Amino acid sequence: MDRIEVTVLPTRKVIKAQIGNSILQILHEADLDIESPCAGEGICGKCKVQVLQGQISSIEEEEAGLLSASEITQGIRLACRAHVLGDVKLSIVVPGINDIRILEQGNMPEFTVDPNIRKVFINPNPPSLQDNSSDIERIEEELKISGEVRLDVLRSLPVTLRESEFKITCVLSGEKIIGIEEGDTTDKGYGVAVDIGTTTVVASVIDLNTGREIGTASALNAQVKYGSDVLSRIQQTRRNLNKVGELKGMIVRTVNSLIGQICAEQSIDRKYIYELVAAGNSTMMHLFLGISPSYIGVSPYAPVFRRGLMVKARELEIDISEFGEVYCLPIASGYVGADIVAGIMATELHKANEPSLLIDIGTNGEIAFSCADKLVACSCAAGPAFEGANISCGMMAAEGAIEAVRIGDSVRIKTIGNKASIGICGSGTMDVVAELLKCGAMNTAGRLLSQEEFLQIPGRPAIAHRLWGQDRQRKFILVEHSPSGEGSVVHISQDDLRQVQLAKGALRSGIEAILITQGVELGDLSKVFLAGAFGKKVRSESLATIGLIPEELASNIILVGNSSKAGATMALLSRKRREEAEAIAERIQYLELSDYPNYERLFASCLVFPEKGGRAFCHTDKFGSDRE
Amino acid sequence: MDRIEVTVLPTRKVIKAQIGNSILQILHEADLDIESPCAGEGICGKCKVQVLQGQISSIEEEEAGLLSASEITQGIRLACRAHVLGDVKLSIVVPGINDIRILEQGNMPEFTVDPNIRKVFINPNPPSLQDNSSDIERIEEELKISGEVRLDVLRSLPVTLRESEFKITCVLSGEKIIGIEEGDTTDKGYGVAVDIGTTTVVASVIDLNTGREIGTASALNAQVKYGSDVLSRIQQTRRNLNKVGELKGMIVRTVNSLIGQICAEQSIDRKYIYELVAAGNSTMMHLFLGISPSYIGVSPYAPVFRRGLMVKARELEIDISEFGEVYCLPIASGYVGADIVAGIMATELHKANEPSLLIDIGTNGEIAFSCADKLVACSCAAGPAFEGANISCGMMAAEGAIEAVRIGDSVRIKTIGNKASIGICGSGTMDVVAELLKCGAMNTAGRLLSQEEFLQIPGRPAIAHRLWGQDRQRKFILVEHSPSGEGSVVHISQDDLRQVQLAKGALRSGIEAILITQGVELGDLSKVFLAGAFGKKVRSESLATIGLIPEELASNIILVGNSSKAGATMALLSRKRREEAEAIAERIQYLELSDYPNYERLFASCLVFPEKGGRAFCHTDKFGSDRE
Repeated sequence: MDRIEVTVLPTRKVIKAQIGNSILQILHEADLDIESPCAGEGICGKCKVQVLQGQISSIEEEEAGLLSASEITQGIRLACRAHVLGDVKLSIVVPGINDIRILEQGNMPEFTVDPNIRKVFINPNPPSLQDNSSDIERIEEELKISGEVRLDVLRSLPVTLRESEFKITCVLSGEKIIGIEEGDTTDKGYGVAVDIGTTTVVASVIDLNTGREIGTASALNAQVKYGSDVLSRIQQTRRNLNKVGELKGMIVRTVNSLIGQICAEQSIDRKYIYELVAAGNSTMMHLFLGISPSYIGVSPYAPVFRRGLMVKARELEIDISEFGEVYCLPIASGYVGADIVAGIMATELHKANEPSLLIDIGTNGEIAFSCADKLVACSCAAGPAFEGANISCGMMAAEGAIEAVRIGDSVRIKTIGNKASIGICGSGTMDVVAELLKCGAMNTAGRLLSQEEFLQIPGRPAIAHRLWGQDRQRKFILVEHSPSGEGSVVHISQDDLRQVQLAKGALRSGIEAILITQGVELGDLSKVFLAGAFGKKVRSESLATIGLIPEELASNIILVGNSSKAGATMALLSRKRREEAEAIAERIQYLELSDYPNYERLFASCLVFPEKGGRAFCHTDKFGSDRE
Repeated sequence: MDRIEVTVLPTRKVIKAQIGNSILQILHEADLDIESPCAGEGICGKCKVQVLQGQISSIEEEEAGLLSASEITQGIRLACRAHVLGDVKLSIVVPGINDIRILEQGNMPEFTVDPNIRKVFINPNPPSLQDNSSDIERIEEELKISGEVRLDVLRSLPVTLRESEFKITCVLSGEKIIGIEEGDTTDKGYGVAVDIGTTTVVASVIDLNTGREIGTASALNAQVKYGSDVLSRIQQTRRNLNKVGELKGMIVRTVNSLIGQICAEQSIDRKYIYELVAAGNSTMMHLFLGISPSYIGVSPYAPVFRRGLMVKARELEIDISEFGEVYCLPIASGYVGADIVAGIMATELHKANEPSLLIDIGTNGEIAFSCADKLVACSCAAGPAFEGANISCGMMAAEGAIEAVRIGDSVRIKTIGNKASIGICGSGTMDVVAELLKCGAMNTAGRLLSQEEFLQIPGRPAIAHRLWGQDRQRKFILVEHSPSGEGSVVHISQDDLRQVQLAKGALRSGIEAILITQGVELGDLSKVFLAGAFGKKVRSESLATIGLIPEELASNIILVGNSSKAGATMALLSRKRREEAEAIAERIQYLELSDYPNYERLFASCLVFPEKGGRAFCHTDKFGSDRE
């Protein structure tokens, strides 16, 4: 038997594995989450593990090129390139499921708490010879309802009624009894609001009696192992229909683990969670339900469904009350998903009387415009650059991530939690690109200057030594290797700048296209809501500097955080808002950018970074040194 | 290992068994159906097996008393008393699941075929960039419907649509799409109507396009192993709640096997069976759905539900189309079940303008009265005597069963299929009791005369030698042992006569009680529908002779056969009739006999057999000799 043991720290989880397999394969088979946007092709350099003990295949040139000398010294390897030759002890280097702090909150307008799930305590008279109608009718009479009844309610009813001496609590979904409990349990009623992102999943447990959020947790979408964008997931299902079930299982597992985490932290019994409301892009909603998104991937991009769907939690294997339900918010088209519907509801964009925009920056960027009875949305493939994926040193907004950067006479950075820097997250990436543009180290075409070129610039800051390498291998060193060994070398490469450029080009072209088709001038815009997982820490100045949004809008921007989860929470807590979401989805007109005349030219013109370097730095954030 | 093999002929099924176990236990564990109304107590003498080879415990006095000398010679044993001591080959003697011919047909009024299940072929336009609404909306538009959608439909939809080039057949239940099929399959659509009796289950497969019955089959309810009446089943569930699932599984297995049998005979693919409609008494409906009937068994006899229920076939494990549904007809109370609701619909009793009765003779007897806006029903525990159970030589209406008896100068019998007699079924039992009463061999108190007493009667037929035994052991020999060995000795015992007397007393008292409470005289009755599993061969003269029905009604009787299954068929084929059934169930007033003033006195007076021996024999049936 060529079986060996791989021990993963800090949990000390032991995996039995086949000798010769790659660590990535072994971790995937054990369902451990590790980022690998290139799907194990050895290109992205993301799947880092630190090998602490044991025999491993030796490092080859290609792999070494994706690691710093310091990392190599520390025994850091790419999981996709390292093969096990005997028992191994390792830890996953990239922030995993337990140490991530993703933007979890979203703004919400006021509304009355009137959830779809209600719990009602009743104490009907027991049957008598004079009144021997059925058990279920006795209950319906108390509740003043009548209609379809679930078989499992009927199965548990006779015994529950009598063991509780006819004192029971009925759990209703709308006007339908979905479950019964002995005694008065009306004080225990919870729901879950979930935002299922392509890259990250955020869940909150909400008290349905008070509307109060009990706890929140977030994690990588376990599907990231199949690549970082929506199309890579769709491609999986096109190649092999059975993959739909597998991809569904991954989201479900992620969601169940988040619910479990919150319940454990807040001492809540998940049997009292009766409903989960989910929002996400159209592909994620399809996959969550186990419905193939294959045809969203090819023209004319038709989804299988659009209206909101109510499904038994058990049917999806969502681990809440055994009679719990799952409501999926409606989608508007194959590329305008429930996340933007939820976002529109949370920002009340659809009620705007003056021209307003909602820009949701995610792996799939979505832009919605509203004014009076107009509600138009488009979608663009921004890529996950602003979520920290597909960027050499990119990471999610976890501790140690650089979230802000200023370049003056030196380079100043701020990390989340003020910890040693281990990478850079979305807001940090936007900042560094804006700063490089302002100081001239990157030109408007997005090219990083060489040391020699940079030294030609009059009044340049003293950062030329941070420009390394030639042409496409060129990079800007944000954090230099520290002698103490703390923190890693963090840089931004020419390729990274191209990723950012493509993302901002895509988003900006969407904004331009939607405004042009609606005949709206920039100056006419009243409000611009900016939503996304990059955080509330993003500087609108940087967004304007890099041209992601027009400079004229920078002062109008309202950061709304995770508006998708905020909308899901509203639909969980208010029946009226749930109906409103359905109405919003129906109202949205879809603007297909590939249909837009000369879209390619518009996109190309949006790729260029702005000539003038934005406004002056005037931020009050406290910055630490970069530990040089 | 003390394991031996029991081989059951004619199927040659081999069962591994523990040495020392009773054959009854072994057959039950292998789920082979064998009648054992006394549940293995060694009292009823029904669980006969013929041991052909092998070692078996020796016969004891008690068992031998329940077998004839000829049976003992042939190696016939009671399965509950015989224990295996080594490998054994045997066959089950009592007619089993495959050779029974139960009354399967029922009369039906005219109605328009408009089933709840519809199949519609559509060929929608594929999506385009101009029209990229979702797949499901595309279909709903063609069908002009919109509403809740099943998850499994959405899961199969995208691929089915495209593989069939947008030519699909939708299966609708009411206004809801429950399934889709590639191409045009509208010519293949079937349903099943089932009557779930306490003792017997009858199923028919019906063509939903034409309303034509494709095939019918019937079998013992596998639950009979737990005793012959409704109360014995309820008691099982009271002792142990897990039994509900087991009893449900038994009915489901019986129903699935009947469907399989018909499909095999008629070459029908069960995937084209989309709906099953079930009728049965309240306890059977509860058990079929896996809902505990425990509280039907105790005052105030409250059922768990009354309205009709629609359930997914898969949820009940009914083996029809994977998206098929099961509709259970409504019940009126704990003891007025869906069978009587169906029967009322099939006979249109509820539309009677003049006083009319429906008498459904089953293990549980039910009587319904209707006149103008009155609709009243009561229920009485008749016992299974008229279905051939709890009678020494009783059997179901299978080949070899004596179905008619005449006593003149000799005893003439007619068997089903004109085969050698092996027992007596319901109509035969009614006949023999009527004939014994007429010739004076049984007195009006139900006592069988001794030879000596009988010989005192002037003008007596020459049958005195057929009266055997003393007091409670006395019996009347219907078929004497034949030297050829063909046929068994068939008799009717004093105990059997008591069973019949109790059954007729219960039914007659129900009839009297309902008429008295409704203030109706016998002469006022316009129609009397007689339904039940004893067959259309029953002579109304015999029923009047024994006093089961008043003599005045004999000429008004309309035999309607299995009206429960007829009603189920109507509900399967007509949406209007299904609604009508719900209305009937709500209209029925329940008359609780135990509430009726002085019911015990009424019942006692109904036990007595009528003084005058009914009308003269004037039947044209062809009778064979009794093979003396």
